[in-house]
Amino acid sequence: MRHALAASAAVLAFAAATSARAEEGMWTFDNFPIARANQTLGVNIDQAFLDRVRLSSVKFGGCSAGLISAEGLVMTNNHCVATCVANLSTQETNYAETGFTPRTREEERKCPGGSAEILTGIEDVTERMHKAGEGPNGEELAGVAFTRARDAEASRIESEACGDATDKRCQVVSLYRGGQFKLYTYKKYSDVRLAWAPEDRAATFGGDLDNFSFPRFAIDAAFIRLYENGVPAVTPTHFTWKADKPVEGQPVFVSGSPGATQRLLTMDQLASVRDVVLPMDQLIASELRGRLIRYSEEGERQAFEAMDPIVSLENTYKRGLGRMRALTDPGFMQMKAGAEADFLQRYAAANASGATGPWGDLTTLQPTLRELYPAMALLEGGTSLGTTPVAGGSQLFSWARTLVRAAQERPKASADRLPEYADSRLAAVQTGLFAERPVYPQLEQVRVEWWLSKTREWLTVDDPRVRTLLGNESPEGLSARMIEGTRLADPAVRRALWEGGLAAIEASDDPLIQFVLKMQEPSRAVRTEWEEKVQAPTDRASEALAAARFAAYGDSVYPDATGTLRLTYGKVEGTDVPGQRWGAFTTFGGLWDRATGAQPFVVAPKLLAAKDRIPADTVLNMAVSSDTIGGSSGSPVITAQGEIVGANFDSTVLTQRNAYGYDRNVNRSVIVTTGAVTAALRDVYGMTGLLAELGVR
Amino acid sequence: MRHALAASAAVLAFAAATSARAEEGMWTFDNFPIARANQTLGVNIDQAFLDRVRLSSVKFGGCSAGLISAEGLVMTNNHCVATCVANLSTQETNYAETGFTPRTREEERKCPGGSAEILTGIEDVTERMHKAGEGPNGEELAGVAFTRARDAEASRIESEACGDATDKRCQVVSLYRGGQFKLYTYKKYSDVRLAWAPEDRAATFGGDLDNFSFPRFAIDAAFIRLYENGVPAVTPTHFTWKADKPVEGQPVFVSGSPGATQRLLTMDQLASVRDVVLPMDQLIASELRGRLIRYSEEGERQAFEAMDPIVSLENTYKRGLGRMRALTDPGFMQMKAGAEADFLQRYAAANASGATGPWGDLTTLQPTLRELYPAMALLEGGTSLGTTPVAGGSQLFSWARTLVRAAQERPKASADRLPEYADSRLAAVQTGLFAERPVYPQLEQVRVEWWLSKTREWLTVDDPRVRTLLGNESPEGLSARMIEGTRLADPAVRRALWEGGLAAIEASDDPLIQFVLKMQEPSRAVRTEWEEKVQAPTDRASEALAAARFAAYGDSVYPDATGTLRLTYGKVEGTDVPGQRWGAFTTFGGLWDRATGAQPFVVAPKLLAAKDRIPADTVLNMAVSSDTIGGSSGSPVITAQGEIVGANFDSTVLTQRNAYGYDRNVNRSVIVTTGAVTAALRDVYGMTGLLAELGVR
Repeated sequence: MRHALAASAAVLAFAAATSARAEEGMWTFDNFPIARANQTLGVNIDQAFLDRVRLSSVKFGGCSAGLISAEGLVMTNNHCVATCVANLSTQETNYAETGFTPRTREEERKCPGGSAEILTGIEDVTERMHKAGEGPNGEELAGVAFTRARDAEASRIESEACGDATDKRCQVVSLYRGGQFKLYTYKKYSDVRLAWAPEDRAATFGGDLDNFSFPRFAIDAAFIRLYENGVPAVTPTHFTWKADKPVEGQPVFVSGSPGATQRLLTMDQLASVRDVVLPMDQLIASELRGRLIRYSEEGERQAFEAMDPIVSLENTYKRGLGRMRALTDPGFMQMKAGAEADFLQRYAAANASGATGPWGDLTTLQPTLRELYPAMALLEGGTSLGTTPVAGGSQLFSWARTLVRAAQERPKASADRLPEYADSRLAAVQTGLFAERPVYPQLEQVRVEWWLSKTREWLTVDDPRVRTLLGNESPEGLSARMIEGTRLADPAVRRALWEGGLAAIEASDDPLIQFVLKMQEPSRAVRTEWEEKVQAPTDRASEALAAARFAAYGDSVYPDATGTLRLTYGKVEGTDVPGQRWGAFTTFGGLWDRATGAQPFVVAPKLLAAKDRIPADTVLNMAVSSDTIGGSSGSPVITAQGEIVGANFDSTVLTQRNAYGYDRNVNRSVIVTTGAVTAALRDVYGMTGLLAELGVR
Repeated sequence: MRHALAASAAVLAFAAATSARAEEGMWTFDNFPIARANQTLGVNIDQAFLDRVRLSSVKFGGCSAGLISAEGLVMTNNHCVATCVANLSTQETNYAETGFTPRTREEERKCPGGSAEILTGIEDVTERMHKAGEGPNGEELAGVAFTRARDAEASRIESEACGDATDKRCQVVSLYRGGQFKLYTYKKYSDVRLAWAPEDRAATFGGDLDNFSFPRFAIDAAFIRLYENGVPAVTPTHFTWKADKPVEGQPVFVSGSPGATQRLLTMDQLASVRDVVLPMDQLIASELRGRLIRYSEEGERQAFEAMDPIVSLENTYKRGLGRMRALTDPGFMQMKAGAEADFLQRYAAANASGATGPWGDLTTLQPTLRELYPAMALLEGGTSLGTTPVAGGSQLFSWARTLVRAAQERPKASADRLPEYADSRLAAVQTGLFAERPVYPQLEQVRVEWWLSKTREWLTVDDPRVRTLLGNESPEGLSARMIEGTRLADPAVRRALWEGGLAAIEASDDPLIQFVLKMQEPSRAVRTEWEEKVQAPTDRASEALAAARFAAYGDSVYPDATGTLRLTYGKVEGTDVPGQRWGAFTTFGGLWDRATGAQPFVVAPKLLAAKDRIPADTVLNMAVSSDTIGGSSGSPVITAQGEIVGANFDSTVLTQRNAYGYDRNVNRSVIVTTGAVTAALRDVYGMTGLLAELGVR
């Protein structure tokens, strides 16, 4: 089976989902269904359009963005620059509160650790990657050997293609869950500066309550600028700014990097997500949310520190809630089951009677996955399934882990390392580690205490790994001792430890470094067991499933989202289903009406002051039927003529089923319009320089 | 169908579950399987034994307890007196920390609002109750009319039997989900005093981590005393104290009032619990937990205030987690599905082919139940399904609601009122309302803020009911205004409002009273809709199901737990299944070994000081195979000779599936032994008077 798959890899670009229909699909740029999109939308795009869109599309952290001038100006969402804004702010000069409004380019400020990328090339490396999964005599590798051999080959390919270049990044991308591998090459910008951000409350009006919903009233847009050699990057290829009032039914394309979908999972895999992954992730996230909310109420400093973390956590949590609802929605699950039954029937017809092939293999794996998930998520993180942040997302812990692991891994040959420390990835590791970021120790302690406490609870107090972590200490005592004692907040200390290597790490008396050193044995063991018993066999079975899907359904399929550039399309329109009935647009007038005067429904002061200058019927947000998901945030929304008309910033809570399948009736992306952004720049924040750069008036 | 049911009501005592086996079953005292218990355990009990056990069994709040002397002395769990201890404590004199150790009876202190009951009589009222579900012409009532008619009849029966007696309580109990109704008559004690409580940490050693687990090392026992006319009650019938070392395999009986099981629910009903009820309850409880944990870290006062609420919340949460695991355990659910398939097959054989009868009715109801549950739980509470506390369990809110509702209901005829305000129940309402309890305003605000915030989140900000609750205020602002402004903490204010009736309520400018008045319309509407569309048709279908079950399986079945007295039996033994392998006993030696010195594994000071006085091999806790569930806490564990050998205080987390079905392999109750209690009384707390009363030495 696997060899047949390897042989047909070249055509697998068309082989991963049951046939996609209408607006469905997050398509790769080298397999975009031009004809179908033209027919569905009544437009006439071609390869030149695709190339221009690709080269105007920017990946910025976990977000998407689009070039809007020839001088490196980029529009994304305000929530995509929230960390940058927080890092540039102090409690006294809080740009989240005031907005960030540089009058000249000299006042634009570099986002600490920020970088941006543009996809410049796609190359097929499927054959090479599949071959790497074989042993020296052509036998199939298994378990960790398989995982590591594949990882090492990917890193080799990346190194060969990008070498030591600092303005490029190479990435081997697994598509169709291993059915296909592509080498993506990016032009990389390591100097990204904040060019404009509105008042945070103008962008987050309605807060968590309005998040993942429509009608919506949020100017969730911000500008960054790409710099090269200290000056704005030269970017002749970019979208054209178009701020006209949008019309219902207008065809649009959305170009961005959706994070992850799980549409190709079998029903048994989805059941594990529903029964084990989502409940644990959501339950413990909810407790962290409670701790952070109460923390934020303890004083102004705490409120300032916790704002960004709460927003981010609530976003993840609400998305998870939408997914729980999808996986427990009898109608939706029946649809998924129907699709699987059809696939299985075709498979059975083509294979030995009674064979369950890759489905059976995946079913067999689920009890092990269910058993191992909590430890993997809590101690190691980084599964493609869950969202639980190791150490509660503590920045100090993350640095400590990077330092300890890099010190342990760097002496090895690149191919023998944990893949995230392979040669081709070390530059990014260092960038993250050396970035100057503010650290809030009390908040860090809340995070670490929560994490230790939940790890002890879920793995149980008698688990030997928990005993290794805690010794005779309590989560409260240990987290306080580590966070009070660590000196890792100082970049010079981090740099010295990095440069000192393993000797410096082992000699360090930093309590956080010592802790992370101590937890390496249990943590690495959990990861090895996961890779051996869950990840590798899942990868194998998923590749077989990809081949079977191709055999059953032929072409016209798209791969699951993987955080890489995709193009999707749709129409500007509202919805008309129970629980979600509304038109396509909201206006500034609607915003004024919705303001109660109590948070989160207070209009930001500068925005409110401009009330009389903005026509009440100016469109603020709109809904489109395109197929997006987390990671699509900031995606440019463009016409068939390459004009940018908005930035995707959200979808509705019903749309969260999108992780598992596209539903034309309910799936809506939420867009902030260029018209609203223009009004904000002109009437609220006085950004005349930027308006001139965009060619407005 | 219903009439057939009414006709056969008398035999329905034997007709509610598929056949019970071995130790399975929480049996009523008027239908206990004497012969089978004798055979299973190799003992020889008779009706006289049952009568003595019943009259020695005490219900205390939500807990169980047992008489252990002729002078009203009762053993229960320490966690059952935690609220009493908290109410008697101040931050300065904190009995939870020091233990409560009165040297004389004069020092025993009354538990505010506490009362205890002993079941003295059981009478069948099925026919009368079933008849009340019919209209004047014998037609079947439906919806709220049905619910209210049944409630009114129950209240009438109770009033007729108990009148105005203050030392009796009458309660019509629905058994087999409406298959049978019994009038339970209790001897009631309204003066219950605390006679001994250990240090809280001796009772809760291991905290939430060891809760719902075994091996266990907790002296979770306490003594109360029943008083009549200011002197200890005369109680010639009681259990005999027996503190000998227990032996493995020993037959025991456990007598108590298990709260609620859902074993008779159909698979579709269970799916609603799994998909909607448990996820919402658990997710929002987890956030409250986080808020309370952080609150408790803000200072010593906050730690004192939040201790009891956190323990209680964590207990409910962990139990819910065990239930979530049961309902997502493929093996367990397959077992349940198999049992239902068998039942359905028998039903189909006996009825028109293709008929799904009550199952079909219940299936049809589920979408409505799923839709209405969040509003019902958040605004009204009190469904038999969930655990979400209205107003976050705020004491002030609870008083306000009682005052407002009582004022609105009391002018009506008893039969027309909300059933909890019927004549037969008003005395208990007043007792609760006028009890002197400490109130911690800051903690109250945390609770109410959380509740308002979760109500807004789950019902959505645009829900008209949410708009009524909040107006233009935020949960933070509104909760602060209400809790700071209310004067209901003063019992005299509550009494004046009670006595002033509706006029006083409507004239009151107390912000909490005003708020509760304002929310009556939406809150009552939610309840009416729930009763009309969910509760009444569910009750109807469940009665039909009870009849069908009897037809299919004959006798030897027991009803779901309903918070009323039951007797269960089993053997002292450990378990030997994956994830739960251990012997039957733990010892004080094991306790000393488990103490790490960090919370929650710090041995309480007085207990630790007695270390050398207690032989290390003294048995502390033990496991038994009896069928218990929440509410069984404090249940006396007795031999076939009526000797008390321990008090049930917990079960394991795997045992939580017990809500839906008994599993002999994993089901274990956790018991604190009389031997451990004797050691504590003698060697730790010097309670020589109590020891003499128990006849020790």
